[in-house]
Amino acid sequence: MNEQGVQAMAEGVARSDPGAETSERPVLVDSADGITRLTLNRPAQFNALSEEMLAALKTALDDIAADGAVRCVVLAGAGKAFCAGHDLRQMMAHDGKAYFKALFEQCSTVMQAIRALPVPVIAQVQGVATAAGCQLVAACDLAVAASSARLAVSGINLGLFCSTPAVALSRNVAPKAAFDMLFTGRFITAARALELGLVNAVAEDDGLEAAVRDYTSAIAAKSAAAVRLGKQMFYAQRAMPLDEAYRFAGEVMADNMMLADAQEGIGAFLNKGRPAKP
Amino acid sequence: MNEQGVQAMAEGVARSDPGAETSERPVLVDSADGITRLTLNRPAQFNALSEEMLAALKTALDDIAADGAVRCVVLAGAGKAFCAGHDLRQMMAHDGKAYFKALFEQCSTVMQAIRALPVPVIAQVQGVATAAGCQLVAACDLAVAASSARLAVSGINLGLFCSTPAVALSRNVAPKAAFDMLFTGRFITAARALELGLVNAVAEDDGLEAAVRDYTSAIAAKSAAAVRLGKQMFYAQRAMPLDEAYRFAGEVMADNMMLADAQEGIGAFLNKGRPAKP
Amino acid sequence: MNEQGVQAMAEGVARSDPGAETSERPVLVDSADGITRLTLNRPAQFNALSEEMLAALKTALDDIAADGAVRCVVLAGAGKAFCAGHDLRQMMAHDGKAYFKALFEQCSTVMQAIRALPVPVIAQVQGVATAAGCQLVAACDLAVAASSARLAVSGINLGLFCSTPAVALSRNVAPKAAFDMLFTGRFITAARALELGLVNAVAEDDGLEAAVRDYTSAIAAKSAAAVRLGKQMFYAQRAMPLDEAYRFAGEVMADNMMLADAQEGIGAFLNKGRPAKP
Repeated sequence: MNEQGVQAMAEGVARSDPGAETSERPVLVDSADGITRLTLNRPAQFNALSEEMLAALKTALDDIAADGAVRCVVLAGAGKAFCAGHDLRQMMAHDGKAYFKALFEQCSTVMQAIRALPVPVIAQVQGVATAAGCQLVAACDLAVAASSARLAVSGINLGLFCSTPAVALSRNVAPKAAFDMLFTGRFITAARALELGLVNAVAEDDGLEAAVRDYTSAIAAKSAAAVRLGKQMFYAQRAMPLDEAYRFAGEVMADNMMLADAQEGIGAFLNKGRPAKP
Repeated sequence: MNEQGVQAMAEGVARSDPGAETSERPVLVDSADGITRLTLNRPAQFNALSEEMLAALKTALDDIAADGAVRCVVLAGAGKAFCAGHDLRQMMAHDGKAYFKALFEQCSTVMQAIRALPVPVIAQVQGVATAAGCQLVAACDLAVAASSARLAVSGINLGLFCSTPAVALSRNVAPKAAFDMLFTGRFITAARALELGLVNAVAEDDGLEAAVRDYTSAIAAKSAAAVRLGKQMFYAQRAMPLDEAYRFAGEVMADNMMLADAQEGIGAFLNKGRPAKP
Repeated sequence: MNEQGVQAMAEGVARSDPGAETSERPVLVDSADGITRLTLNRPAQFNALSEEMLAALKTALDDIAADGAVRCVVLAGAGKAFCAGHDLRQMMAHDGKAYFKALFEQCSTVMQAIRALPVPVIAQVQGVATAAGCQLVAACDLAVAASSARLAVSGINLGLFCSTPAVALSRNVAPKAAFDMLFTGRFITAARALELGLVNAVAEDDGLEAAVRDYTSAIAAKSAAAVRLGKQMFYAQRAMPLDEAYRFAGEVMADNMMLADAQEGIGAFLNKGRPAKP
């Protein structure tokens, strides 16, 4: 997608006809083989995060959190764009600080629910990911982008600094790079997002789903218990001083060794190539 | 600039003739169109940070902090170098720990004043940026380097570990890369500085000013209120735990929505292409 | 080394014949010219970190900490691999959470002793560095890898999430990249490790020792006092808020100026090219 196309897409969301809203649910949920796929489903609005979309996302994440059978989640967008951020038209239909404070709180709750989810969440990014859409990419544990995807935290262009997106972005990329994106509002390419650490892999546009499947297959093949314990410990230890982090990690790892999955996994590994019972 | 040239330049500052000091002010201040340009102006000393230079910088930064019309600051160096660090000749004319403690405190105050300034500060880097000169690059919000520029925290080569530069450097680049620079004292290229996240962009030498202008024009075109609110919140939230950061960011963003700039910016965006009043 | 070779090596350690253990000490210690070289010496087990290996490493590190003549440490592995992590066969010969908790605590103590050592420690990485072996690379101050080296935190493949390695890894590389390695268990190349900041340099396989020597020579040529003071301050300040870090750094740097090494180093630099006593 060229720069013009990207810009047109970014602008398109805001000027899209509200009447084009379908009666479709704002988030589609599909589960198969332990992989749950959440699809932001307002393609005509480039999947802008309306209140209804945020509420549906939160419900879907809560359901996943309560479902022991899920091993991995993919967060994708229907249509040409991943997500163009908040629904500006809906926002402008309200006023009063209290409304906006509640809206951004609702949005932050969703972002933190992704982090708190017991299983990995992978963003599948095509088209544009702007403002809170770019924040979604940052908030996921992993992200794979199509090579034509473009990312920006572009609120500053409209006089609305991307404050909540800055929280997630600045915890993913180096400070000068985050500052650059936030204060120029410019789009970066998928390749640049990879260099910055904002995405894990870039795929040809027609290979995006396959590249995401590389991750979901890999993760679904691991011990579900170890993955769940691992995600929780990964983020918990990062917030601790080094010595405390090591103490916590040692305790978690000793618990992990007590699980049948580890005993069997290591046992099978050691005995591979030899008859288990000779 | 080849490695020999860089080395000669780095050494030149220290051995430069003190008599070559002109009566020029150590920092030149030029303002136009909301952009204030601070030029370190001891070219014969490769802009070494004498006490007088640091004091002049602090005064200039204080003036900018009090001037609501400034939208963006460029920090540049006159002559061949950006900045070769502290003025070693002046330092060696003193002794006693109290003097040095006060000097490094004065320097740290300048570095933190850059961070605390309500508007973005962009380092324009040519020639060498060594020791506290490299720290200045790290302390700025953004940095653009000429392709021939070279950066180092080279105090260790003289038996003086770059302790205060380490504070800024290690908050900009990955720990092993910072350790490498600090303990080998080696120069890195502008291209490597870009990879590490120490600068945001690298320009051909004769395109450096234009590349900096790309940033100043972009930032000066945004809402001044949103930029000021954004810089303050960007650094404040990074020091907070995730949930606290989100609460703070949501509050700031709701306040931002109450500003006329945001209301008008979003409104204009939504109505672009349509008559505002049909 | 191709992927198959890497996999075979990684698996080899676990299935290696315990009878192949020699009577050699598990860690070889060689010192010359201020450089101490620690060599993990269980090549037939790809230098797996048995209890005995960890104890020997801790003793060697304690000896170095008490030896004022050491200027720099190299941590290397004998044979084809750097280190394939914990000794799974030894682990599986035990049970009970208490044993594993003590084992991981012993391992974390070694990792933190590397950090606490008053002199820089450089990992010299060839073949595979997996699980706690990859953690060793992350825990060292600097790392140089052979171009054919491969790194992974692959415990998840066996149902044992690399919790303690995650502590070191996530403090070296961007969060999404660390998450990727920990949850897919995949090997990354030396070149990718360089991009991520997990190693400082990549050398041709037959140039690995020379590339490590570039670092040891550079560091051994600096003021020993400044290097020791520098390493301690580097890690201490990173854990502090910015203003506290600057205060601490200024104090350390003023102390550094009082050292004869700094006075002489700066004096010689300023007088280079001129007779010291005319």
